[in-house]
Amino acid sequence: MKLLKRSLSIIFISTLLLFVSGDFSYSSLDEGMWTFDNHPSKILKAKYGFVPSKEWLDHVRLASVRFMDGGSGSFISPNGLVLTNHHVAMGQLQKISSGEENYVNTGFLANTKEEEIKCPDLELNVLIFTENVTERVRAAVEKDMSDAKALKARRAVMAKIEKESLDKTGLRSNVIDLYHGGEYWLYRYKKYTDVRLVMAPERQAAYFGGDSDNFTYPRYDLDMAFFRAYEKNQPIKSPHFLKWNSKGAQGGELVFVSGNPGSTDRLYTYAELEMARDFRYPLILEYIDKYLKALREYAKKGQEQQRLSLGMIFGLENSKKALTGEYNGLLDEELMAKRKKNEKEFRRTVSKNQNLSKSYSDAWDIIEKVVKENRKVALLQFYQNLRGYRLPGIATSIVRYVVEVKKPDAERLPGYHESGLNEFKFRLFSPAPVFKDMEEAVLSFTLQLSLDGLGKGDEFVKLVLAGHSPDEVAKEVIGGTKLDDPKFRKKLIEGGQEAVANCKDPLIVLVRKIDPLLRKKEKWNRDNVESVIAQAREKIAKARFAAYGTDAYPDATFTLRLSYGTVKSYLYNGTRAPWKTSLYGVFDRASSFGNKGEYALPQRFWDRKDELDLSTPVNFVSTCDIIGGNSGSPVINRKAEIVGLIFDGNIESLSGRFMYDEVKSRAVSVHTAYIIEGLRKLYDAGFIADEIEGKE
Amino acid sequence: MKLLKRSLSIIFISTLLLFVSGDFSYSSLDEGMWTFDNHPSKILKAKYGFVPSKEWLDHVRLASVRFMDGGSGSFISPNGLVLTNHHVAMGQLQKISSGEENYVNTGFLANTKEEEIKCPDLELNVLIFTENVTERVRAAVEKDMSDAKALKARRAVMAKIEKESLDKTGLRSNVIDLYHGGEYWLYRYKKYTDVRLVMAPERQAAYFGGDSDNFTYPRYDLDMAFFRAYEKNQPIKSPHFLKWNSKGAQGGELVFVSGNPGSTDRLYTYAELEMARDFRYPLILEYIDKYLKALREYAKKGQEQQRLSLGMIFGLENSKKALTGEYNGLLDEELMAKRKKNEKEFRRTVSKNQNLSKSYSDAWDIIEKVVKENRKVALLQFYQNLRGYRLPGIATSIVRYVVEVKKPDAERLPGYHESGLNEFKFRLFSPAPVFKDMEEAVLSFTLQLSLDGLGKGDEFVKLVLAGHSPDEVAKEVIGGTKLDDPKFRKKLIEGGQEAVANCKDPLIVLVRKIDPLLRKKEKWNRDNVESVIAQAREKIAKARFAAYGTDAYPDATFTLRLSYGTVKSYLYNGTRAPWKTSLYGVFDRASSFGNKGEYALPQRFWDRKDELDLSTPVNFVSTCDIIGGNSGSPVINRKAEIVGLIFDGNIESLSGRFMYDEVKSRAVSVHTAYIIEGLRKLYDAGFIADEIEGKE
Repeated sequence: MKLLKRSLSIIFISTLLLFVSGDFSYSSLDEGMWTFDNHPSKILKAKYGFVPSKEWLDHVRLASVRFMDGGSGSFISPNGLVLTNHHVAMGQLQKISSGEENYVNTGFLANTKEEEIKCPDLELNVLIFTENVTERVRAAVEKDMSDAKALKARRAVMAKIEKESLDKTGLRSNVIDLYHGGEYWLYRYKKYTDVRLVMAPERQAAYFGGDSDNFTYPRYDLDMAFFRAYEKNQPIKSPHFLKWNSKGAQGGELVFVSGNPGSTDRLYTYAELEMARDFRYPLILEYIDKYLKALREYAKKGQEQQRLSLGMIFGLENSKKALTGEYNGLLDEELMAKRKKNEKEFRRTVSKNQNLSKSYSDAWDIIEKVVKENRKVALLQFYQNLRGYRLPGIATSIVRYVVEVKKPDAERLPGYHESGLNEFKFRLFSPAPVFKDMEEAVLSFTLQLSLDGLGKGDEFVKLVLAGHSPDEVAKEVIGGTKLDDPKFRKKLIEGGQEAVANCKDPLIVLVRKIDPLLRKKEKWNRDNVESVIAQAREKIAKARFAAYGTDAYPDATFTLRLSYGTVKSYLYNGTRAPWKTSLYGVFDRASSFGNKGEYALPQRFWDRKDELDLSTPVNFVSTCDIIGGNSGSPVINRKAEIVGLIFDGNIESLSGRFMYDEVKSRAVSVHTAYIIEGLRKLYDAGFIADEIEGKE
Repeated sequence: MKLLKRSLSIIFISTLLLFVSGDFSYSSLDEGMWTFDNHPSKILKAKYGFVPSKEWLDHVRLASVRFMDGGSGSFISPNGLVLTNHHVAMGQLQKISSGEENYVNTGFLANTKEEEIKCPDLELNVLIFTENVTERVRAAVEKDMSDAKALKARRAVMAKIEKESLDKTGLRSNVIDLYHGGEYWLYRYKKYTDVRLVMAPERQAAYFGGDSDNFTYPRYDLDMAFFRAYEKNQPIKSPHFLKWNSKGAQGGELVFVSGNPGSTDRLYTYAELEMARDFRYPLILEYIDKYLKALREYAKKGQEQQRLSLGMIFGLENSKKALTGEYNGLLDEELMAKRKKNEKEFRRTVSKNQNLSKSYSDAWDIIEKVVKENRKVALLQFYQNLRGYRLPGIATSIVRYVVEVKKPDAERLPGYHESGLNEFKFRLFSPAPVFKDMEEAVLSFTLQLSLDGLGKGDEFVKLVLAGHSPDEVAKEVIGGTKLDDPKFRKKLIEGGQEAVANCKDPLIVLVRKIDPLLRKKEKWNRDNVESVIAQAREKIAKARFAAYGTDAYPDATFTLRLSYGTVKSYLYNGTRAPWKTSLYGVFDRASSFGNKGEYALPQRFWDRKDELDLSTPVNFVSTCDIIGGNSGSPVINRKAEIVGLIFDGNIESLSGRFMYDEVKSRAVSVHTAYIIEGLRKLYDAGFIADEIEGKE
């Protein structure tokens, strides 16, 4: 339940700092989140005697699905059936639930296609084309440009390439920065926005063990959900679907994971690691603690409040546990020493070579200087933000949109380029219900946190609160806004700059007031921090290619990657963790905790216990290198058959953000045998099992 | 499977170093292995609102049994039925097994009293009388005696008190050194030597998970065995037996453990801890590794060799895992810092008080000096020993006995005083079979280890090998000796000094040759190390009483103690370990590992699965403070009813040798419900269940 791309914490982090760069090294371990154009065939051949063919790779890529909610998935039938995790589906489950029908608690099953429920704002992507555009992006940067201008030029040409591609193909087009400035690639996606929920078990089965068991193994979760992609009101044809292997993963076998890891920091310089350890993680963890405390207070107010805040509490707990694990990685002296040593060796290699040395050797010191000098600014910027839940973001998007679209594409703020406006509007006009009660509560205490962090005299605080309390401001702007109505948002967007300028909606008024200040701060940051680091990291990327060649994998970017590894037990807790768990274990853990709280099994498990084959494998582990965003990724065998469903990493894997460890780190998956057993015997959904097993 | 008093490693350690002394501190935690005369009533009352009455304490003490094999147990019926662990019974199970009947593998059940099998050399003790004899022991030491003379005088008077008590009562009488010279107590035991095996499950059920799961939790073991004490060929009457509680331990409840913890080093000085960390543990762990490697080679030779070496391999693996855990405790900087701080504070308290300072403040420095100066000697002494398996020890006992008994009691070596000769002879004349094949193999490679450790030129090596190889010597002395016959041993003992002096048995000849050297070394060690440390530790003990009062518990001494604590889960592996496991979990772990190797369940489990209540609690954890030697201890509730059976500690508890940790450290027990479920439904031993549940 934790390999969601941590959108929340990623927002936090990006506000603070920013980009990644540094050194790395890997060997013949099962390491790496490889792009499909550059998979480690040499290592695979040597270690496993198997190299995926081009056809294999194309097939797997076209069967892989990205969930823009922050996860991964795959086609598992020719009729657009998509498998992912329950926790990837969680946001949509909440959005289609109501006070009467809480699908998060009850689960959901569409017995016919007609019963499948359309998700309000779910976008799925399939990567159908990639092209290396490094030369064109590099060419846009002139020789004597300042770092700030170079960043702007780079972003402008990236937006231009995207727009041209969109116009030419009508496909979602993104230029991806790989290896931190080492390469730029144009990715084109087939996009699905009519996605319908087919089946989801109860959260108690999917997330059995709750936050306690989150990011751990041995594990016992049925963390699955099924969607179907539609076009023109018909299920799509999906010829590239993964064949189902009901026998599932076997101990010792080679498996692959195809999915979209969100972000890693394996290329951080040592200075950036230190900054993360000493400044960023302590700050964020403290913030999350306070946030969680406030949300839990809110949840106590009633059943509806509890229901509404569940998703956010889950997200924060998930982030907290993940970040704590990552933080522990940073506190691990051995890991830090390794990173320091690797960087030292890399820098020595660079300094020994005259050409490399001349061009690149100052990059590390530049990053160290910027990172150290800007801690204070980063701290301010962390708090100088209107956070809240969904509405403040909607208001900001509208206020900025009407201004940005008037500018030439190259001049616009990130996020407002022509190429991305379709997706921008899809999100902005989402009909998903807005819960004002919670919006108000969340805005109130995020404002309080800003007030506490900045003090009364801060310019942002003065602008936002204007002498009032956070409670009063939240009550006024959330209570008075009409932005919960998608039609109102549309009207403002269509009315353009004038409509927004004259709008008396209190939330729009507030955002209008603070936007100039935030723009100024963001620009300063782009010009003085982001651009400098970007330039330095490009140097490091070039130096790395020159020194080590391109036999490397880039840091994760929430784009499609292929990992590989072995289904394999590991040592933990003084003994061995088995490579798989069984259905017996589900009942053991429930019994051990008195079938209560996080360990209460849905009644259907007890009622149907005697029909179940309790020796059915439930979850299993592999050495595949994954991270948040890989949630819902298919685990496949040499034949590209699906044998499992990624949903988590063990507690030891969390330091994987900074460094991979094959000895203790494991990816945790749902075994395909449990999915079939569950569908057939627990959820009366044999027809779904038939569809995916090809028995229709 | 690991709370056996580690006789093996304890031998190793005592050769090396020696005594314990130091500082400690504890608060209102569930800490301490308390003597029955001084239990922590204040803490119990404050924390649990319950203080055991004198009747409660007397009853529990008289129902508690010490296994001289190195464990604990309790009476659980009025007819002398004793419950302990399978792994405490393991040695006897091997001794009564043969090539045809391997009770270790098959388990054993006596369907009638007539079928109960007499153990060849099992001694059980019940503590029936205690008396503080500190004044008398202290009075034996005159004011200006050297440390060496003081040690001798103390040991002489202790032997004298024991002998007087034995003569007066006929009871096993031991003077115990508590608090390292702080107090001396005379303990009298009722002794049972006709002890018969009633029931034991297969080792695969008792030790399910094997060495891998040893010292860990969550856990799934049926680590039980039943004996019956006899006198005059009749089951004894045991009015003080513990009432059985079939509902068993409940989460959150207060429980007590009555048993015989073997040894702790909580009072070590910091210098001793450092010496253990930097010298003793690395040395012993390396030795065990080599030993195990050799034994495993031996075990490969055939099925019989495998059977014979199983017990020893188990013991060594158990020691290795325990010592590794303890060593990790020593490597834990936080723990060491705490111990350092405590010692510093204690020493400051002492130095601030003029009286205390004058008498005691030099004790720590004395210990530090002795410990540091004698590392080299300790290393030599470690290897200058004829180890082997059983026969070399038997030979040494005989050669020394005939000399020692001629001396006045006060002059004899430890172990040869009048008061202990009954037990000495019981062990020496044990009819348990001796396996020459294994004796030879073990002697050969322990000689090889001495040769490797000391070199060819060493005086001990020269004496023992006399130019031959370890193989040759082992073959000659083991092949030629008749000491495997108890009657031959008896004849030698009865023949006295002359018979031994003229004996041509090659093993006796060898021991006669090396004994003078070993005696010399041991004497030097007593006079220059043991006695100095003993004197210093007595000072520290006195200082501690003066500074902190007697509200303290002594280090463990393999004598009866009472621990207390709560049945309670704990955080591990990023999540929570439940306070209990269930029978579902037994099948989960077996299934997860393919029902193979250490995780293969006996077939009866699979055959009778459907008759079992799989939600039956199997094992559970409590915060009770225990250590090796507590194996087989009863876990009892406020009513002194038995609710569980101690058999292990979790991996986090191993540093408990040096310091107690209530947060992570747990004692692991078999739940009484599993014992009943197993007896009735798996082992067709309902009549035993009836006897202990009082349903006869």
